[in-house]
Amino acid sequence: MQIAFLLYDRFTCLDAIGPLDVLSNLPGAEPVFVAEKRGTVRNDSGAAGLVADRSFEEVTAPDILVVPGGLGTQMFLDHQPTLAWIRKVHESTKWTTSVCSGSLLLAAAGLLNGAPATTHWIARDLLAALGARPVPERVVVHGKIITAAGVSSGIDMALGLVQRLHGDDMAKAVQLAIEYDPQPPFDCGALEKADERIVEMARAALMAGLEQR
Amino acid sequence: MQIAFLLYDRFTCLDAIGPLDVLSNLPGAEPVFVAEKRGTVRNDSGAAGLVADRSFEEVTAPDILVVPGGLGTQMFLDHQPTLAWIRKVHESTKWTTSVCSGSLLLAAAGLLNGAPATTHWIARDLLAALGARPVPERVVVHGKIITAAGVSSGIDMALGLVQRLHGDDMAKAVQLAIEYDPQPPFDCGALEKADERIVEMARAALMAGLEQR
Repeated sequence: MQIAFLLYDRFTCLDAIGPLDVLSNLPGAEPVFVAEKRGTVRNDSGAAGLVADRSFEEVTAPDILVVPGGLGTQMFLDHQPTLAWIRKVHESTKWTTSVCSGSLLLAAAGLLNGAPATTHWIARDLLAALGARPVPERVVVHGKIITAAGVSSGIDMALGLVQRLHGDDMAKAVQLAIEYDPQPPFDCGALEKADERIVEMARAALMAGLEQR
Repeated sequence: MQIAFLLYDRFTCLDAIGPLDVLSNLPGAEPVFVAEKRGTVRNDSGAAGLVADRSFEEVTAPDILVVPGGLGTQMFLDHQPTLAWIRKVHESTKWTTSVCSGSLLLAAAGLLNGAPATTHWIARDLLAALGARPVPERVVVHGKIITAAGVSSGIDMALGLVQRLHGDDMAKAVQLAIEYDPQPPFDCGALEKADERIVEMARAALMAGLEQR
């Protein structure tokens, strides 16, 4: 079962690596990192370089597609090679998934017209502008498309996918294998749960990252 | 504030990338991936290649050290260049941290003699054999050493570190920035919470990974 992780300049690492370390535990999993061209792709801060071992031409029919988000997403919303590749592989995927602002790319590729979908809370308006119907949930399943909210939500999304593919016991075993017994310090990890002051601090931190590189 | 992430063959990506995408949000953060030599380092499954931009010689005084675990950890428990580098940078770190079986490397380097520490549940006996005192908690703070349990726990560890360094509000803002509002499908992410049958399935999956490469 080939699982393709799309890489592009200034993606967010955790968006891709959360699902990677969940889905890699599946029997027969063949994860592969894909970009327009082979080579190192830098994350949003530039500090992490992840290697795309395959180019778009080399990965044409993955079983699962995972599209991460990141500060760079907006620069790819009219990047035709990326959108065309997403559209093409989506034709034969079993599941097409996104994490964070990755859903903007699915929408820009025309996969979410009028469809319910989620994204990072900071990108909801943009998702709507691209024709999708933003839903403030952590994971949204619509047909064979699964969108997840910001960054860390990819772990929950991927565990749900394991459950769909292999049942409850396998999902439980993978959850235990990655010791996913979360103990967040506060109950403020979603827009609806955070004070406006904290929301503004988070927005400022994200915007600083956007302007930094 | 330089934050050094140690890379070595067959590390687990999420162990490093969870803390990366938490700590990168700190003002003045300078994350850097370090290995014995510069170049691409492969994760446990081999599917992900992360670039070490700096060698041990080039990173001598990070403020924070993050040591990930992985299937490869055991092969480095007597790797003197790695252990010597950990010992050396620990002298001047503000915080020395580990995720998953990364604590085995701290112990092998002599940093945890008789000290309370945690690790992936599958490695507790090994941690004890290396002279530490395993504690079945998700995050254990001992002086300036923070050890975290398996894989996903690095996110909780790093958020706790943000809280210590910059206070509650910053930790809340970062938690919101990565939309960390976990919704695990089951309550079985810790050894003490899982049925024996699920534990055996998880153990088998982990062992299969160990034998695969």
